[in-house]
Amino acid sequence: MTQSPSRPTRVAVLGASGRMGAAACAAVEEAEDLELVARIGRGDPLDAVAAAGAEVAIDLTVPSATGENVHWLVEHGIHAVVGTTGWTEESLGELRARLEGTDGVGVLIAPNFAIGAVLAMRFAEIAARYYESAEIIEMHHPNKLDAPSGTATHTAAAIARGRAAAGLGPVPDATEKDPAGARGAVVDGIHVHAVRQRGLVAHEVVQFGGVGEQFTLRHDSFDRISFMPGVLLGVREVAAHPGLTVGLDGFMDLG
Amino acid sequence: MTQSPSRPTRVAVLGASGRMGAAACAAVEEAEDLELVARIGRGDPLDAVAAAGAEVAIDLTVPSATGENVHWLVEHGIHAVVGTTGWTEESLGELRARLEGTDGVGVLIAPNFAIGAVLAMRFAEIAARYYESAEIIEMHHPNKLDAPSGTATHTAAAIARGRAAAGLGPVPDATEKDPAGARGAVVDGIHVHAVRQRGLVAHEVVQFGGVGEQFTLRHDSFDRISFMPGVLLGVREVAAHPGLTVGLDGFMDLG
Amino acid sequence: MTQSPSRPTRVAVLGASGRMGAAACAAVEEAEDLELVARIGRGDPLDAVAAAGAEVAIDLTVPSATGENVHWLVEHGIHAVVGTTGWTEESLGELRARLEGTDGVGVLIAPNFAIGAVLAMRFAEIAARYYESAEIIEMHHPNKLDAPSGTATHTAAAIARGRAAAGLGPVPDATEKDPAGARGAVVDGIHVHAVRQRGLVAHEVVQFGGVGEQFTLRHDSFDRISFMPGVLLGVREVAAHPGLTVGLDGFMDLG
Amino acid sequence: MTQSPSRPTRVAVLGASGRMGAAACAAVEEAEDLELVARIGRGDPLDAVAAAGAEVAIDLTVPSATGENVHWLVEHGIHAVVGTTGWTEESLGELRARLEGTDGVGVLIAPNFAIGAVLAMRFAEIAARYYESAEIIEMHHPNKLDAPSGTATHTAAAIARGRAAAGLGPVPDATEKDPAGARGAVVDGIHVHAVRQRGLVAHEVVQFGGVGEQFTLRHDSFDRISFMPGVLLGVREVAAHPGLTVGLDGFMDLG
Repeated sequence: MTQSPSRPTRVAVLGASGRMGAAACAAVEEAEDLELVARIGRGDPLDAVAAAGAEVAIDLTVPSATGENVHWLVEHGIHAVVGTTGWTEESLGELRARLEGTDGVGVLIAPNFAIGAVLAMRFAEIAARYYESAEIIEMHHPNKLDAPSGTATHTAAAIARGRAAAGLGPVPDATEKDPAGARGAVVDGIHVHAVRQRGLVAHEVVQFGGVGEQFTLRHDSFDRISFMPGVLLGVREVAAHPGLTVGLDGFMDLG
Repeated sequence: MTQSPSRPTRVAVLGASGRMGAAACAAVEEAEDLELVARIGRGDPLDAVAAAGAEVAIDLTVPSATGENVHWLVEHGIHAVVGTTGWTEESLGELRARLEGTDGVGVLIAPNFAIGAVLAMRFAEIAARYYESAEIIEMHHPNKLDAPSGTATHTAAAIARGRAAAGLGPVPDATEKDPAGARGAVVDGIHVHAVRQRGLVAHEVVQFGGVGEQFTLRHDSFDRISFMPGVLLGVREVAAHPGLTVGLDGFMDLG
Repeated sequence: MTQSPSRPTRVAVLGASGRMGAAACAAVEEAEDLELVARIGRGDPLDAVAAAGAEVAIDLTVPSATGENVHWLVEHGIHAVVGTTGWTEESLGELRARLEGTDGVGVLIAPNFAIGAVLAMRFAEIAARYYESAEIIEMHHPNKLDAPSGTATHTAAAIARGRAAAGLGPVPDATEKDPAGARGAVVDGIHVHAVRQRGLVAHEVVQFGGVGEQFTLRHDSFDRISFMPGVLLGVREVAAHPGLTVGLDGFMDLG
Repeated sequence: MTQSPSRPTRVAVLGASGRMGAAACAAVEEAEDLELVARIGRGDPLDAVAAAGAEVAIDLTVPSATGENVHWLVEHGIHAVVGTTGWTEESLGELRARLEGTDGVGVLIAPNFAIGAVLAMRFAEIAARYYESAEIIEMHHPNKLDAPSGTATHTAAAIARGRAAAGLGPVPDATEKDPAGARGAVVDGIHVHAVRQRGLVAHEVVQFGGVGEQFTLRHDSFDRISFMPGVLLGVREVAAHPGLTVGLDGFMDLG
C-alpha cells in the first residue's frame, strides 16, 4: 500500500492551526516517506505553499475558503487532499472541468477520512443484498447537536442501494403500537437509532438479520487521530489518480 | 441451589397444552428432584390436581383463569408458581389477604421467568447509581406488535430508581436537531431504542457511560426454553417462602 | 437476485434423510421458483434423479459418496450444488477435467453455505489491509470437539493474505509473560480464541485495531436453517456458471 | 451519593508527579466538595501534608514507599485512600492492628479504582450461580507485557466462588483436539482469553451461557481518567469507614 520512494513527498498543510490540521501536521512529520514543508494558518499567503516546493497539499480549512484554495493549488500543479466540507454538485462540477485542462493534477475530496467508516459503508451496501432485515445504531458523545449522524445517514442510503439492487422490498416490521417512538428514525426505509452517552466518541453499528442468523459491522472511533491513516493514504495516492475523486473509497482496494 | 430431597416434589402444570405449559411439563419431567403428577389443559377439572397429590402447581394459563386457579390452589394447601399475566394491585391484595389465613402456603407471581432478564434489571438499578449516562436498546423478532418491550420499560424504571437514589439529575443530551426521531423513546427519563430484525428472538442491551468508560449489560434469549430454569427455581423455592412473592428476584440471592 | 422463471427449476436432494438434507428439502419446497422432484436417501439408486427430470441436484451426503455422486450427475447433464466435505486438490482436478468435456454443466462445491460467514471472510481480507492489529474470536456450543473452528482458520488465512498484499508485518504484541496460554492459538500469524458456551451455536467475531479506532465483523448463526439461503442461491445460480466453482463467494456479487 | 458539606474536605495527593497522581490532583481540583491542599512528589517531606491541614490523603506512589506513607498518615490522624500495589497479607495485618489503636481513622486500599471493573466482578460472582457456562475475554493495548490481566484473574476467582456457592461443577467442554491452544488459559476452572490490539486501552467481557440464553457483562476503560470517580468516591467515604477496608466495593452500595 505504502511506497518508500527514494526521497520523501513534500507536503503542505492548509488550516494547520485547527485541531484536525495540527493532527495532520504531526502525522505527516511522523511518516518516513513524507516531509512537512509548509504549515499554512488563517491569513497566511498561499504563495508559501509553492515557495516551499510542496507536491501535495492537505486542505483542512473552512467551507468558505476551501474552493479558492483548491483552485489555486490546481493552477500551481499541486495535488490536493481535501477534508473540508461545503462542496456542492455545482462547485464539484466546476472543479472537474478545471482539472481536465491540467496535466495530471489529482484532487481528492473526502467527506470522511475514517477508513473504518468507509469500509463499514461499503460492506453494508454489499451485505444488504443478502439479508431480509437491516438497522443502524449510531452512538456518540452527549454534546453532539444533531441526530442521526451524517455517517449513519449515508450508510442507510448505501443499504437502500444494496437492497434495491437485489430486488428486496421493505424490511419486515409488524409494529402496531409504538406511542413513544422507540423504533427510531427511518432513513431511506432503514431504521436508524441514535445513542448519546458520556465517554463515547463516534461509533456505528450496522446489523443485518435473516432466518437463523445475524451479521454485524461495527466501527469505533475513539479519537480524531483515527482519521490520520486515511489522510496519509490520500496524500500517498493522489498523484497516481489525476482528475477529481470524491470519497476515500476511490483510492481503496475494496474489490 | 438445587436440593436433592429423598423423594421428588410432586408438581402439577396448569395450562399444559399451551407452548409454555408444554415446555414446563418437559422441564419438570427432566428434573430428577421433581415429578410431574398432573397435566391440566383447558376445561380439565382442578380436582385432578389435588387427587394427584400435587405439592406445587405451575399456572401458565390465561389472565381470565389465573385468579380463580390460584385461589383454588391456596384453599387446597398447594403452593403456586404463576407465570400468567393479568394480576392487578387489587387482585394481588386480595390474594395476599387470603394467604395470611393459611398455614404456610407460598405463591410466586413472576411476570418474567428469564433469570438473565431479572439479573439485568437488578444490576441495572445498581450500576445506574454510578454513571452519568444510561440508555437501553431492546431487540426482537419483526413480528412483535408493540415497542418498546415490557422488559425494557421495567428496566428503564429500575435505572430511574437507581439514579434517584444517587441524587443524579437528567442524563446529558445536547441534541437540538432530530427531525426523524432517531433518539428513540424516553421512558422515565431514559432513552429506549427498539430494533426489529429477522433471526432475533428477545434481547436487551443496557449501556452506561461515564468520562473515559462504558459499562454494558446484555441478555440474549434465543428460545422460550430459557425461561425454564427460572420456572424450576420457583418450584423448588416456593414452599420455603410462605405468603405472596411478586418477582422471581424474591427467590434469588442477589445480595 | 432471484429469478422467477415461468416454470420452477426441478431439484433433487441427495442425502435427504440427514439433518441438513431434510432442511434442504423443506427449503426447496417453500421456494416458489423451485420444485422438489426427488429425495434420495442412503441406498436409494441415483437413477431416480434422472427419472424425475431433475435439472439441479443438491449433494449433502458423506465424504465417501460425494465423488461418485457428482461424477454421475455430470455424466447425466445435471448441475450439482455440493455441501459435502472431503474433496481434495486431486479429486477437484479430476472433476474440473471431466467438466471440460461437457456442454455447460455447472458444479458448485462449497465448504460453507452460511452467507454471513462468506461475507465475514471476504470483508476480513479487505479490512486486513488497513489495520495494524487483527484477532479472531470464534464461539460455539460446548459439544464441539475441535478448536479452533474451520471457519476461523480460513478467516485467519484470509487476513494473512490481506496483510501480505498491503506489505504489513507481524501484528504488534509485547506479551512477555503468559504462563497459561491466554493469548490463544496463532494461525497464519493471527491470534485465534475459541469460546465454548451452553446456549451458543456458531459465532465468529473478527476485530481489527488501529491507533484510535476499532473495526469489527461479527456473524451469528443460531440455527442450521441459516445455511439454506446459501444453498438456494447455489441452486439458482449454478446453471449460469458452467464448469467447477469452489466457494459460494464465486456466485456472490462482492465487488 | 456525594455530599455537599458546608466546607470542602481538605485533600493531599502523594505521588502527585506521576500520571495517576496528576490526574487525581486535577479531579480533586474540579470537585466542588473537595479542596486540594498539598501535592507531594518524590522526595518531598510528608510533614507538608500535616502542615496543610489535610483530612484525607490519596497515596498513588510506589510499592516501596506506600507502607511507610500510610503508617505516617494513620499516626497523624489523616484518612488514607491508597491505589498503590504491593500490599501483602502480612503488611495488611500490621496496618489493621495499627488502626485498632486509633480513634476512627479510615484507610481504603483498592487494587482497582475503576467502578465498572468492580461492578463487573461483583455482578459476575452473582450471575455465576445461575449459568452452566462462563468465560472471560479481556482486551488490552498491544504494549501490555503480561496475560491475562489481573482484573480477569480476579474475575475468574469471583466466578469460581459463585459457582461453588451454587454447587455447580466444572463448565461443560467437549474439546478433544486443540493443538494450538485456542481455548486459552484456565484460571480457577474458568477459560480466560487475552486479546491485544492497537487502539484498545483496557476492556473486559464476561459471558455466561445457559440453554437458550446468554448473559454478558462488559466494561470498557478508554482512559485512566475513568479511575477518578472511584478515587473521589473513596475520598468522600473513607472518613465514614474507620479501620481498614480492602477493595472499593466496601464503600459501594451493591446490595
